[in-house]
Amino acid sequence: MNLNTTIDRTSYIPYYIQVVDILKDYIDHGGGQPGEQLPGEPELCRLFAVSRTVIRQALKELEYDGLIVREKGKGTFIAEPKIRESLFQELTGFYQDMAAKGHPPVSKVLKQKVVPAGAKVAAYLSLEPETPVIQIDRLRFVQGEPIVLVTTYLPYALCPELLAADLTQQSLYAFLEQEYDLLIARGQRILEAVLANEYEAELLQVKPGAALIMLDSVSYLEDGTPIEYFHALHRGDRSRFEVELIHVRDRGVPTGRVTMR
Amino acid sequence: MNLNTTIDRTSYIPYYIQVVDILKDYIDHGGGQPGEQLPGEPELCRLFAVSRTVIRQALKELEYDGLIVREKGKGTFIAEPKIRESLFQELTGFYQDMAAKGHPPVSKVLKQKVVPAGAKVAAYLSLEPETPVIQIDRLRFVQGEPIVLVTTYLPYALCPELLAADLTQQSLYAFLEQEYDLLIARGQRILEAVLANEYEAELLQVKPGAALIMLDSVSYLEDGTPIEYFHALHRGDRSRFEVELIHVRDRGVPTGRVTMR
Repeated sequence: MNLNTTIDRTSYIPYYIQVVDILKDYIDHGGGQPGEQLPGEPELCRLFAVSRTVIRQALKELEYDGLIVREKGKGTFIAEPKIRESLFQELTGFYQDMAAKGHPPVSKVLKQKVVPAGAKVAAYLSLEPETPVIQIDRLRFVQGEPIVLVTTYLPYALCPELLAADLTQQSLYAFLEQEYDLLIARGQRILEAVLANEYEAELLQVKPGAALIMLDSVSYLEDGTPIEYFHALHRGDRSRFEVELIHVRDRGVPTGRVTMR
Repeated sequence: MNLNTTIDRTSYIPYYIQVVDILKDYIDHGGGQPGEQLPGEPELCRLFAVSRTVIRQALKELEYDGLIVREKGKGTFIAEPKIRESLFQELTGFYQDMAAKGHPPVSKVLKQKVVPAGAKVAAYLSLEPETPVIQIDRLRFVQGEPIVLVTTYLPYALCPELLAADLTQQSLYAFLEQEYDLLIARGQRILEAVLANEYEAELLQVKPGAALIMLDSVSYLEDGTPIEYFHALHRGDRSRFEVELIHVRDRGVPTGRVTMR
């Protein structure tokens, strides 16, 4: 491990945050490799010339952020990198996105049945409240690890056969396209950061209070019909969303334009 | 308050989550207004026919998510809606985005000085490590409330005057355009969910362990020169990011195209 361990003792930034930043730099850009063992706490104290409390706080922070993994009696290791999802790929579906990366997800289907649409679902899908919708709750695994807990609603009238479809290893979007020729043309996504409650934590195998990315989404067909509303909770320690924005300056047009790869 | 308080007692979903979902529906779509007082705990127990423990867990959850505010001795109220930021508007800058909504942000500048670029900053800005960069740490307020803590790095050589600029009530992007004719043409954004540490929590006036949206970003000029790297932490209880995706199916072109308003 080759890094500059100099703490700025005149800075307003607490020592432990400076230690975190230096170690993050090393993990992200300085040559740190997943699985690599970090020096023990006493050695880190010596390297940074700070107290054990500072080092412990820094390691706790790095662990929270999913950058390191601490194994009792073994030591501290650099974690596997987060799963990268582009928001564009999200539009093509989580299944295709992960499959394209060589890790087709496996889903545990927790619920798949017809329910009357509640106020929110009805509003998103432009349906009258109480209209039958198919609700599908899935816990989705990548490489054996639970990554996302997603509840999806679709108008029952548009895809009744979906009720019997096996979605454990199949893309929902592929099913809609193959069975019904329904192509998703447009999507709105809302991202928020939330904390895992006990129920979500248990399913996603994180601690209650862990950070999750909430992704709320409505997808539309070419003619503007809303076809799907979903509410997804992604493990914050394993997920990151990437987006590329391009600002095209159209003369006289006050709105910008943005593309995403 | 007019809502369907029926709990599905056969569902695998815990009662308190069902209560949360019903109350969220009411707040988001069922006519609930910011500032509106919710019924007290005993009344909620009666309405949903569940125990006090269930109601308390549900209210804790809604409070975590920033949907309700609990005031000691006064009661429980529907919170102000989250600040909506589109990722496109983020490219035009937080200042312009908020100013366009009638709430120009005010910044407390915590740091504004020249530092040698660390490994990460150097990599993002395509500089040699140790190249002088201007580091600006700002705590940004909207309507008097701290919303985002952001650290920005820019190559010193490209905008030396920035070191002396007053950014408390001015847009950084506007300054770059007016003083140096530097226009941001493209940006990469990475979003993650993280937990507030004590330092961040104190500045953002949230509890340690609160959910934050981390936004990491590099912005480029038209010619591809990286002009800015920033690392921003947005309060999860007050921020949401919205993005609109459009899937254009170009014949023979395997990549999709996406626009965002």
